[in-house]
Amino acid sequence: VITAGPTREHLDDVRFLSNASTGRMGCELARAAARRGARVTLVIGPTALKPPAGVRSVSVISTQEMLAAARVAAAGADLVIFAAAPSDWRPSPRLRGKPPREAGPFDLRLNPTPDIAATLARGKGDRVHVGFALEVGRGEARAREKMARKRLDAIVLNGVENVGTGGGHAAWLVADEQAVPLSTASKARLAGSLLRCIEPLLLDRE
Amino acid sequence: VITAGPTREHLDDVRFLSNASTGRMGCELARAAARRGARVTLVIGPTALKPPAGVRSVSVISTQEMLAAARVAAAGADLVIFAAAPSDWRPSPRLRGKPPREAGPFDLRLNPTPDIAATLARGKGDRVHVGFALEVGRGEARAREKMARKRLDAIVLNGVENVGTGGGHAAWLVADEQAVPLSTASKARLAGSLLRCIEPLLLDRE
Repeated sequence: VITAGPTREHLDDVRFLSNASTGRMGCELARAAARRGARVTLVIGPTALKPPAGVRSVSVISTQEMLAAARVAAAGADLVIFAAAPSDWRPSPRLRGKPPREAGPFDLRLNPTPDIAATLARGKGDRVHVGFALEVGRGEARAREKMARKRLDAIVLNGVENVGTGGGHAAWLVADEQAVPLSTASKARLAGSLLRCIEPLLLDRE
Repeated sequence: VITAGPTREHLDDVRFLSNASTGRMGCELARAAARRGARVTLVIGPTALKPPAGVRSVSVISTQEMLAAARVAAAGADLVIFAAAPSDWRPSPRLRGKPPREAGPFDLRLNPTPDIAATLARGKGDRVHVGFALEVGRGEARAREKMARKRLDAIVLNGVENVGTGGGHAAWLVADEQAVPLSTASKARLAGSLLRCIEPLLLDRE
């Protein structure tokens, strides 16, 4: 199971809070995993990308919808890669229609949305969970703290500057081991490197 | 000059307020106008679309940037079509970095962004301005009020349900004349119909 893309948290029928994730990282992981013979379900937020051939995909809009679809897909899965960048704040109130510009200024509260990886950690069993940490600067300590808190088996440290771009510099982190730099020319190559890193985690379970 | 696509109003380095506009309407208008021999500048927000061949395009992110680029391009132009769906509310404060989910709940103020069409109306001269009104339901009265307030020569009434989709139902409104329904199978055909509606406005100036 691979989650991909952004999610949208609507403020009204037209406006929403989101981010620049294109879903390319998750799609490349899905393509590479399918090519290696995995049965892949891609849970993907709103994006202009077509899901790769041979991959079952489930389209979602909001973080709550992504959580629900990922939860269903994860039951019985061996591996979940949390490659999506879900909107983690949700505007409240959720307005109806499209209030005009002139209705502002307008005060809004942002509440946290459900944490998908942390939620699926409950009842995870021996399913392997791999997350992404999008951090400003280096942020290895924050990524490791996130890995522990969400009970992830490994985490990919990703620079904020990679969101919405074709390339990517990243590091592979597993508890009690040194960071492995993953400097790549493209997200397709990064996807291949990540699957090679993930393979031992799956084999270790047996 | 044609504006196209959404704009983004960032809340921090990662999260932004936007809408589902794909820029397709503006790109189809640019393509159709270039094919008719017009020299077209497309001022386009973040989108996955490639601007059509033969069209000069200027990429922007925020509404303020779109306004600045449109203002420069409009100087000396005969026609401006405001086909973009700029974010009309801007979150304040603009935070640095990427505050974690756990930093919320968080209170935010949304302030109105500059109105691009209304701003360019000042010093418009005999340049023809055509706008779009995205309204929930029918909303012809609201569209006509918007046309007058922004000193538009014509306005295209568009249903909210068309944003981010391939098709479109629309109506052409000119002051003191009945609405002309523009029911189309695609945005490409709608673009052609609109240019045929616009042509007399350009000829009337001479």
